[in-house]
Amino acid sequence: MKTTKKYTLPESEIPKQWYNIVADMPNAPKPLLNPGTRQPLKPEEMEGLFAKELVAQEFSRERFIDIPEEVQTLLKIYRPSPLVRASGLEKALDTPARIYFKNESISPVGSHKLNSAIPQAYYNAIQGIKHITTETGAGQWGSAMSIACKHFGLDLNVFMVKNSYNAKPYRKVVMRTYGAQVHASPSNVTEYGRNVLANDPECQGSLGMAISEAVEMAVKTPDCRYTLGSVLNHVLLHQTIIGLEAEKQMEMAGDYPDKVIACFGGGSNFSGISFPFLRHNLKDGKKVRFMAAEPAACPKLSKGRLDYDFGDSAGMTPLIPMYTLGHDFQPDQIHAAGLRYHGGGQIVSQLKQDGLIESYPVEQIEAFKAGVIFAQSEGIIPAPESTHAIALTVREALKAKESGRKEVILFNLSGHGLLDMSAYEMYLNGSL
Amino acid sequence: MKTTKKYTLPESEIPKQWYNIVADMPNAPKPLLNPGTRQPLKPEEMEGLFAKELVAQEFSRERFIDIPEEVQTLLKIYRPSPLVRASGLEKALDTPARIYFKNESISPVGSHKLNSAIPQAYYNAIQGIKHITTETGAGQWGSAMSIACKHFGLDLNVFMVKNSYNAKPYRKVVMRTYGAQVHASPSNVTEYGRNVLANDPECQGSLGMAISEAVEMAVKTPDCRYTLGSVLNHVLLHQTIIGLEAEKQMEMAGDYPDKVIACFGGGSNFSGISFPFLRHNLKDGKKVRFMAAEPAACPKLSKGRLDYDFGDSAGMTPLIPMYTLGHDFQPDQIHAAGLRYHGGGQIVSQLKQDGLIESYPVEQIEAFKAGVIFAQSEGIIPAPESTHAIALTVREALKAKESGRKEVILFNLSGHGLLDMSAYEMYLNGSL
Repeated sequence: MKTTKKYTLPESEIPKQWYNIVADMPNAPKPLLNPGTRQPLKPEEMEGLFAKELVAQEFSRERFIDIPEEVQTLLKIYRPSPLVRASGLEKALDTPARIYFKNESISPVGSHKLNSAIPQAYYNAIQGIKHITTETGAGQWGSAMSIACKHFGLDLNVFMVKNSYNAKPYRKVVMRTYGAQVHASPSNVTEYGRNVLANDPECQGSLGMAISEAVEMAVKTPDCRYTLGSVLNHVLLHQTIIGLEAEKQMEMAGDYPDKVIACFGGGSNFSGISFPFLRHNLKDGKKVRFMAAEPAACPKLSKGRLDYDFGDSAGMTPLIPMYTLGHDFQPDQIHAAGLRYHGGGQIVSQLKQDGLIESYPVEQIEAFKAGVIFAQSEGIIPAPESTHAIALTVREALKAKESGRKEVILFNLSGHGLLDMSAYEMYLNGSL
Repeated sequence: MKTTKKYTLPESEIPKQWYNIVADMPNAPKPLLNPGTRQPLKPEEMEGLFAKELVAQEFSRERFIDIPEEVQTLLKIYRPSPLVRASGLEKALDTPARIYFKNESISPVGSHKLNSAIPQAYYNAIQGIKHITTETGAGQWGSAMSIACKHFGLDLNVFMVKNSYNAKPYRKVVMRTYGAQVHASPSNVTEYGRNVLANDPECQGSLGMAISEAVEMAVKTPDCRYTLGSVLNHVLLHQTIIGLEAEKQMEMAGDYPDKVIACFGGGSNFSGISFPFLRHNLKDGKKVRFMAAEPAACPKLSKGRLDYDFGDSAGMTPLIPMYTLGHDFQPDQIHAAGLRYHGGGQIVSQLKQDGLIESYPVEQIEAFKAGVIFAQSEGIIPAPESTHAIALTVREALKAKESGRKEVILFNLSGHGLLDMSAYEMYLNGSL
């Protein structure tokens, strides 16, 4: 923890608008397609599934979008989040690199996911929606939606990937404590789930399957909408609050990042911290590198093909133009369950194709090793997802040591790992 | 979470001194006694067990004691902690009371315990001590000492009450992740532990037993000292940073508490938030009420006898003048393991005898009920210990509703409950 310094923005400096990178992309993302007609999807075709205002954001090309005042007030419960100079980690690595991290683990649910859960619940509530469905992998998104829905008086059903449901038993209790109903997916609650179980009663589930179940329930339930915690444009939009704050905080620190690093599942925290800085590459000639840390077990950006693919396993969603491992891809049961998604989303995939962002696969064991170094040097036990970002940061910091480069690395600590201690136990026991 | 407002002190306003209430007490606490001679204990008699500077603080009558700069720097990792207006809770209870809480759950280990772990590790390190022992109940103190010792390069052995070791399996992984050695107490590592196990192989342990083991190991190991997370004067002293910050933050909020509430195990968080305000009762004619929320299973202040008693089960410590249930008392296995201590300590017991503080037993089931109301209305899942303070706050807020009193209640949220979700699961399933 040596001489660790944190940069705290005053509450008055919380961003009043989200940043929409679509306005500044050299090549606009290709359109979503209606899977039946293969014609570009129209906003009204999505409004049965998502709240109207969220659909409008999904299709928006406006550069900045106002954050509603009620959402700002709620975000202030834990925001602005601190930017921290990781001097303890620097010392542990004996690197000349200056390392900073944005600490999103301080939210009451322990991750950045609340940044989008609050506005998603808000827009559904003001539209008069009563019921919400969603899916969750590790449970971070499900926890965030649970408290956000409770606040707005929305009833919530969460489909949690079965492997995580069993491996992270405390997560479902968190969601239940906040008042949500949690189903292990595949479940008997939906037709899709029942079909999967009929073919494979031992199926451990995937994010794609859980999405299919949540979508099916949303479509079949009156006054109900579906919500998603990553991949879609409006989710990435909400998460830009991370990078917008970080920009101001890097200025407080008198530094500017050479590299921005985040873990990558569906893109929410990576985009959140990257896009506000990437804007200055696109417009002001900055040359920051944006590096996505993917799990080696699910390397969609690094090893996927660029194609139209479904967002879910059942093929119920629009077709998304993206780097994908295939919507029926079932990744290994790694502990970073939040990174086990098959595709990279519309915006991120276009940016990758245009060479504006990079991606690197990280093995689980390297990730946990870096996570323990970070825990011991900075005092915070990181989520298994976040350890991937830390591992890539460690790699870069050690390269900087070799070459003597005094570069500046900024990474996003997307969440803490206090509900993932069984994974740490396996790592410490050498049984990973 | 409705319109919840947090009051954040700038880092520059972090207290530079701790407040020592002994300087202002109308009746000084009675002295500790050497159990052999029954004569007042001399500081030098404690220096084999505790770092010299901590012993000096234990006996000090100075009103303010400087916080070393290195300790201040480390405290700034998470301090000042926010003061929060609990408008969501007020709304849920429909009370005219204005409720505030000090949020100590934001520390990287999830509780207030780091406030004393950092200075205790620091004073041992600058004295050249190499090895530290301690005990822990729920694991909050053990986690805090683990990261503090790691930072200062001290080797740490933690004796964790066996019941908690098994009931809270993630806690020991947290400590191991930070690099500590953790033993289920009673253990085979000490003579005392072996004797207990010989008589009762199924013994589930108690804080008193764990202290005996940690003390024995400290005495028998070269360059080793013992540390304690509550009860003793120097621990309460370190925790006054909570109340000193809260004073300034209540001023920011334009309010002053009528009642200050905290849970009570050995007195660390209760004293921490209370003493700085109690000073103004003693010196400036304020009439704040200080209300300790005790577990009904271990009501030392409410139902104990005032007497000299040992701090541990084996009778290895000095004799402490305090309200006690007896050093061999074995409380029920409640989930708030941090509150299962038999005695009230030297200072708190004197204050209680002088009518300056009050205590109220709270049943576990009432505590969890209040904890869930708080989680759903404020978004934070409280530690089982902290739910006792919330339950007493709820009681008082509902009384205020009946009588229409617009009183101001300040309580301490000593920690979060993310590592205690199995207890919440039992509560939600109706199996508590």
